[in-house]
This record gives sequence, structure tokens and C-alpha cells, in this order.
Amino acid sequence: MRLKIDVELDYAIDGVSDTLLMVQAAALPDQQLEYDNLLVSSSEPLRATVGTDDIGVRCWVLAEGWFRVTYQAIVAVDRPDVALAALGATAPRLLPPETVPYLMPSRYCPSDQFEGFVAQTFGDLRGGPLAAALTEWVGDNLIYTSGSSTGATTALETFANRHGVCRDYTHLLVTLARAGGIPARCVSAYAPGVDPPDFHAVAELWLDGAWRLVDATGMGSARDLVRIAVGRDATDIAFMTTFGAATLNQQQIKVALLDA
Amino acid sequence: MRLKIDVELDYAIDGVSDTLLMVQAAALPDQQLEYDNLLVSSSEPLRATVGTDDIGVRCWVLAEGWFRVTYQAIVAVDRPDVALAALGATAPRLLPPETVPYLMPSRYCPSDQFEGFVAQTFGDLRGGPLAAALTEWVGDNLIYTSGSSTGATTALETFANRHGVCRDYTHLLVTLARAGGIPARCVSAYAPGVDPPDFHAVAELWLDGAWRLVDATGMGSARDLVRIAVGRDATDIAFMTTFGAATLNQQQIKVALLDA
Amino acid sequence: MRLKIDVELDYAIDGVSDTLLMVQAAALPDQQLEYDNLLVSSSEPLRATVGTDDIGVRCWVLAEGWFRVTYQAIVAVDRPDVALAALGATAPRLLPPETVPYLMPSRYCPSDQFEGFVAQTFGDLRGGPLAAALTEWVGDNLIYTSGSSTGATTALETFANRHGVCRDYTHLLVTLARAGGIPARCVSAYAPGVDPPDFHAVAELWLDGAWRLVDATGMGSARDLVRIAVGRDATDIAFMTTFGAATLNQQQIKVALLDA
Amino acid sequence: MRLKIDVELDYAIDGVSDTLLMVQAAALPDQQLEYDNLLVSSSEPLRATVGTDDIGVRCWVLAEGWFRVTYQAIVAVDRPDVALAALGATAPRLLPPETVPYLMPSRYCPSDQFEGFVAQTFGDLRGGPLAAALTEWVGDNLIYTSGSSTGATTALETFANRHGVCRDYTHLLVTLARAGGIPARCVSAYAPGVDPPDFHAVAELWLDGAWRLVDATGMGSARDLVRIAVGRDATDIAFMTTFGAATLNQQQIKVALLDA
Repeated sequence: MRLKIDVELDYAIDGVSDTLLMVQAAALPDQQLEYDNLLVSSSEPLRATVGTDDIGVRCWVLAEGWFRVTYQAIVAVDRPDVALAALGATAPRLLPPETVPYLMPSRYCPSDQFEGFVAQTFGDLRGGPLAAALTEWVGDNLIYTSGSSTGATTALETFANRHGVCRDYTHLLVTLARAGGIPARCVSAYAPGVDPPDFHAVAELWLDGAWRLVDATGMGSARDLVRIAVGRDATDIAFMTTFGAATLNQQQIKVALLDA
Repeated sequence: MRLKIDVELDYAIDGVSDTLLMVQAAALPDQQLEYDNLLVSSSEPLRATVGTDDIGVRCWVLAEGWFRVTYQAIVAVDRPDVALAALGATAPRLLPPETVPYLMPSRYCPSDQFEGFVAQTFGDLRGGPLAAALTEWVGDNLIYTSGSSTGATTALETFANRHGVCRDYTHLLVTLARAGGIPARCVSAYAPGVDPPDFHAVAELWLDGAWRLVDATGMGSARDLVRIAVGRDATDIAFMTTFGAATLNQQQIKVALLDA
Repeated sequence: MRLKIDVELDYAIDGVSDTLLMVQAAALPDQQLEYDNLLVSSSEPLRATVGTDDIGVRCWVLAEGWFRVTYQAIVAVDRPDVALAALGATAPRLLPPETVPYLMPSRYCPSDQFEGFVAQTFGDLRGGPLAAALTEWVGDNLIYTSGSSTGATTALETFANRHGVCRDYTHLLVTLARAGGIPARCVSAYAPGVDPPDFHAVAELWLDGAWRLVDATGMGSARDLVRIAVGRDATDIAFMTTFGAATLNQQQIKVALLDA
Repeated sequence: MRLKIDVELDYAIDGVSDTLLMVQAAALPDQQLEYDNLLVSSSEPLRATVGTDDIGVRCWVLAEGWFRVTYQAIVAVDRPDVALAALGATAPRLLPPETVPYLMPSRYCPSDQFEGFVAQTFGDLRGGPLAAALTEWVGDNLIYTSGSSTGATTALETFANRHGVCRDYTHLLVTLARAGGIPARCVSAYAPGVDPPDFHAVAELWLDGAWRLVDATGMGSARDLVRIAVGRDATDIAFMTTFGAATLNQQQIKVALLDA
């Protein structure tokens, strides 16, 4: 499956600001970059460094005044859909060390508060069967509602409010998974089925020896997602973080399937 | 039904502290005080004032050093159990003015965050049928666990944690009821079935023209509860609020049925 | 001092909704209504009931479709500015019973969390001198910033964020006052100095036997404020609460001094 | 400076639980392990893996029934005290990639909420001078109070409450540093000056090209601290995390200076 990605960001920066961009498709075995072109109106050269868990590119720029970013890429995704429910459980003590931090609560994913709910509702399920049940539960119990949350909304609030956008679906699934003993991280992504088109957020759950992409909104599938960055929650994977004040003029994200 | 109440509080006060006691059974048409005796080791006369919604007694004392309170009462309760599910709904605009504040969120009952959950889970239920369903839901989904919460725990935390004591059961029921358009307040009470014996907290829901006592823990019933005080949540109905530092030495609450 | 008030609200209601309006100037000894005219596009007669603490009017309407409210009033305010710092302290045990609930934390004013800060920063100040110091502290330490908060922002968040609007200034002052043993409530009001013109929120602190109006933003003064409603925090004094979905078309509030 | 460390943990495990221990002194250039002996009553071999940022040891065990851990070590610390205020600032865009996640908010360190406070109170300070000012501010404004917080307390709550233990001092300093653009992480440590003796928590701030140990409580200094583990906040550095239920029987931590 090949995807064409086309991004335009247009912001007004108040003065000069160090700005962290994470918009480039990550080069990974299951998503090959055929074309990749980032143009940024920066007043000094870009500084590209590696992202969390060695995935993707953190691109630092010095943004000033009228700040524009364009990014085009063509990415070939070769990743099968995996039936979560068939995957086995890994006991915590046997997890690879790099996955252990993803068992812990984070800013927007307070999994320490959800152990009671997960134990009560999902009983003895573990590993893949639990992951499948949690994903279904989130899809069934949240209503996708634009504007129903802010950048400060936590999974605990979403759990009661029952409305959210992709960020909230992902935070809640990640939170429940961690509470159930499954390492879980958040992933920013491009996906062709997002409507209206925008940056997307999905989860990755560590199951049976690998990270498994899961889109709790049902908009995308592992087969057509292009990862940008990974982290503990939205705070780690924002497409743009400005250390100063920025105002959106406009932005546009297009993701198209090039062939069936 | 007649209840014998016997309370002993024994605290060490650091210096001198204004202290608010709410331990006396409220004199109300459905709970008659046959005997009522409060003794307090106060360094000046007690100052008794009326409680919230004209229910019960707020007793102010000046506590100093070794602070002891004993209270004995005999109360005749004449109050039928009411089948909640049979009670009609009252449209918000037809509510008596004194009930309207009990539609609003409070410190430990953030009902504004629960409208999504209540709408999604209980659909078109209103009034008594909703109240019955919410009470059943809380009883089914919480596990009574001593020590599982603190004085700072909110209903939002209990909703995820699924463990609590009578305070938490009541906060969650009150929160859900408000989110569903039913005025709801918290009530401190004496009840014979509480184990281990302690002050108890229950809810009152405004349905079909009257406040209806509901014990979400199932430990008590409307037939044998003796109200002490009412308010928006635990903050209004604490049996003792010290404006200074106090240390518990020991306290003992006994509530016995005098005849079947 | 005479004020002319002119309000136009224009909303789209989704279906039919019970709606609570609190926009009318309260008739009180220190603010006399010379003219008062409320027009509402309701599909049934208005239902006016008395507000919290017997102040102001809660007006219930059945709103449907295109929902318009106009309100005009002329109010003569005769209320001196009071020097807070000169007012004495009242020990908690000597407070009138109706003020005691305003010592307690509420949804947006978690005063239980601020006792340490108030004790540390304001030491042995009590009563009027404390109230004056708290008001000055809030004015000095917050920056008035439109759009810096939402309807869910608590005083705890404002305390760290240090930006807010009148609602946040009031919540923080009320919170600090309660933590310092001063009963404090929130008041919705009309004030001529609000820029841009809008409904205003101020505090009332119980000092030396009476409620004292305090505008922590400094935009208004006790001399020119017209109270609409009072309550524990913003949740009790909203100018419009819809039990259903409403969309703002436009609204306009004008408050003018009629003579100097 | 040489330290002798002696730890005994004694817990009752309910059934069998995967348990993560992080009690071993980390082997690092500035703290050499002369002796290091961990004994654990585990029903299968220990599984030692590397800690976050390649520091320290995560030791997984299968705990069952009566669970005892003893640990003795002798560690030679060779680390100068550094004058924070003399260290320069690093612009965010020039930070090493592994430090960037430590600019972001975490579960107990919601730095996103503190940008207003830091900007207002510390103005144009950056880098070392800001770090020194923040450390002094935390030391001056918190009161060390045993039992004043729980495992769920966040830096936002501590900021209002003004009481805490080492965990809270560290969380608040880390939070303020991140809000001020300084990468900051939490460190579990052994320190000889902790009274009563216990595991200790301190901060590390990234300044002028290196992580700098800072003990906001003033109990320890960079010269005598022995790091165990690092992470975003307390959730990453707990000395023991049980995936199941554990009850403390007793524990004892001794840290002694071997020579002056």
C-alpha cells in the first residue's frame, strides 16, 4: 500500500522561537520512504535528531515571524493486519527493558487510577484477548466528537465524558492497556481514512514480542498507518511544539492512497 | 422502628480550636427524637445553629487540649421504603428553588464531567427509573473496600478506581444523579447495619416532590436511617471540622435497633 | 450612582430545552431597580423563582429553536466603598449559620488544598487585613488574559497558570479567603468598567457582620457593581444554563453610567 | 567519600506477583561500587535489566508469600558540588535528543500548567541562574512534613499545599525546571543525611552539557548522593513495584559515611 502525504503549516510566530517539528514519516522496515521532502522557513539550518525509541525525526528549527512548513512524502507501507486476540500475554518480569516505562502512568494517561475498572470489567483477560477487548470497549463507549476536548484533557476525564477525538481515544486505550499490564505507547501518524484530514493519533501495544498498531477510532488500520513519532502520550508526539507564542494561520494535511 | 445511638469521640486538640460538630440526630417529621443528650468538653458554652436546608444542628464549640464528646439518643424512625423506579420525573424548570443548587457540581461531585456517561449508559431514563438504575449501577460496579480512598477522593477518581467506602458510593451516586437532571444531596446518618459501626453517608434524591433517602452501599434502608445533616457533598456534612490541628485518640459509634 | 443595563442574547437551541436564566439585576437595599424589563422568546410562560440566599431571580424558560432574550434595566446603586483592611475578623464559631457553607470548598474553589499556602504567605493575618492582602495578591499575581481559561478551569489551575479572566480572579480570591477562614461567595454582576463589556464575576467576603463586594480584577468597585446572583462558584451563577444543547449566535451586554 | 548502604525489605505478597525492584546503587563513573550484594527470596532466578537512560538496574523477581530483600553496598562517590548559578543555558533546539523528553510534563509533574508562574516569578532567568533560583524557591516555600502527601500527590497539589516530603520537593523542582525550559528528571538515591533514614528522591537538571544532581530538600548534596535509578517522575523510580497486592511488614534503610 502506497500513500502520498502532503502537509502545509502556516503560523505566525511572536518574535523568535525554538520550535520542535515532528511531521516526517519515520523510516522503518514496515514503512519505506520513497520520497520525503521537508521545507521550512527557518532563519538558520534545521537540526534533525532522532526521536524517542530511535523512531522518527525530531526536527528543531528557529522559527521567526511568518513560519511556513511544507512536507511531501510517498511511503510504501507493508504491514499486515494482526488479529490482536490471538496474541499471547507476556508476564511483566519478562518484558524487554525498553518497554517497561510504557507500563507506567503519564501526564494524560493516569493508568494507576484504572486498575480497579480493568480488573472488574475484564477479569482474567491478559495479553492479546485483553487488548482486543479494550479496543472494542473504547470504540463502543466513546463518541467521536470534534471539539469535545482540549490539549489538557486526560484519559480520566474522557472516561467520564465519553466524547473525544483521536487523541482521546488513544489516551484512553493506552491508559487501560497499561492498567491491564500491557506496555502501551502513543503514536502520531498519517492515515488515509481520517475525516476531516488531520494528523492522527493511534496506540501501539506490546504484545507477543512486538509493538502492534491499534487505531481505537476505527478510522485507520495497521495496514495503512504511517508512523511519525512515538512516546508516552500526546505530550511526546505533538507535530509542533513552540517554545514561545504561535498563532495558527492555516494548516492542511492530505493523505491519499496511491493504489489499491 | 426505634434506634439507640451512642457516640464517643476522643481527640487531642493542638492549642485552642473553633470546632464544628454535626453529630446530633436531626429532629424531623419522619425521625422523632425521644432522647437526645450531647456532652462536650468545651471551654465555653456550645453554640448551636441550624444546619443546611434547616435540617439538623451545627454545634460550634471552642475545643482545647483533651477534647471529648459523648452523644446518646433514641430516635423513632417512621419512614416507608419507597420504590424509586415508580417515581415520576420533574422537569428542571418545575423544580422548587431550594433544590436547584443540588443539580450543580460540587467539590467531590463533578457532575459536569459525567453527562456523556449518563446519557450513553442510561439513555432516555428519567426521574425514578433513572434513579433506580443509577443506584443499582453504583452497587454493582463499586467494591466496598476500607482504606481505598482519602478525604480528597472525588467521584471521578472513584469512577475509575471502582473501590470505595460509603462516602465514595454516595458521591458517585449523587454525581450521576445530578448529571441525569435529578437534584441530589449528601446526608450524614446513623444506620444500624453499618459494619464496622461508624458514621454513615447516604444520598437523597429529589423525586416526585420529595427528597428520597438512598443508600448506595445497601447497608441501610430508608426505613432505618437517621439523618444528621445534609449538604452538597462530604465537605458540608462532616461530623467534626476543626479549624486547627486535631489528633484522633479514639472514637466509637454504636447504633442499635431497640425493637424489630 | 445610576446604571443603564442593556442585554441581548441570541442562541440556537437544539430541540426544546429547559433553560435557567439569571440575568436580572437583584432588587436589594443597596441597588434599587428603577426599571426592569425582561423579554424572552419562550414557548410557555416564564417561571421566576428566588435565587440562592434569597438574592435575585432564577428564571426558568422552555427554550426552543431560535432563542432570544433582551433585558433592560436602570439601577440606582447606593453602596459605599469599604476599606477592607479596617474590618475585624469573626471567629468561625461566631459566624451566622447561612455563611458557614461558604467556608467550604466547592467545584472550582478547592480551598482545602490552599491552607498551606495561605498560612505560609499571610501568616497571622485574619479578617479584613487578610482579605485586603489576598485581594492585592490576586491582583498582583494574575494577568488578565482573554481566552486563557475554560468553563472547567479550577482555582488550583489558575494558581499555577497565573492567567485568567474575571471568573478566575474571583475563584482564586474566594478560594484563598475560605482557606483563611473567611466565608466567601461568587457573585455575577453588571459593572460599567468591564472591557470588553460582558457579564462580570466578583467575590463577596463576609467581614465584620456583612457581605463585602470585592472585584479582584480591579475593573469594578463596590460603588458601581450591580449583583445578579450569588453562589458557591461559577456553577451557581451562570447567566444561562441549558439542559440540552445551545449554540451562541451572538450576545451583547452594555452597562453605562447614567450620571457621574 | 565512601558510603555504606544497608537495606532490608520485608513484605507479605498476596499469592504470586511479578515484582520490579530498583534498590541497587547504579555503577557510574562518579559513583564506583566497591561492594554490592543483593539477596532476594524469589521463587525463580532474578532477571536484571538495564534501567532508563542506561542507568542502574531493574531487577525483576517473582515474589511469593513472605518476601524479603537485603542489599548491602559500599560506594565511593567522587563528584564535586557544582555552583548551579554559574552554569549557562542551552537553547531547546540545541539539546541532545535524549534530554528532550525531560522537557515534557509527566504524571506527577504537570509542567504545562506552570509556565505562567515561572515566567511571572523568575522573568528572564535561564539555565543555571534559573535552576539556582528555582531550587532556592522550593526550599524556601515548602515545609518538610512527614505524612503530608500520598503516592498520588502531584506537583500542582504540592504547589498549593506547601507541605511535602522528598518526593514532593523533587516533583515540584522538576516541574518548575521543565516549565522554564530546563530538562529535568527524578532520581532515586541513597543519601547519608536523610532523617529518618529512607530511600531518597532528588532531581537532576540538564545544564551546560551534563545532568546536575540537586536535592531540593537540602538533606543531601551532590557530593554524597548515590543514584539508584532515573526517570520522568516517581512512577519510574519506585524502589519496588508489585503487579499484585503486597503488605509491608517492615523495612529499614541505613546509609552511613565510612570516612570523612
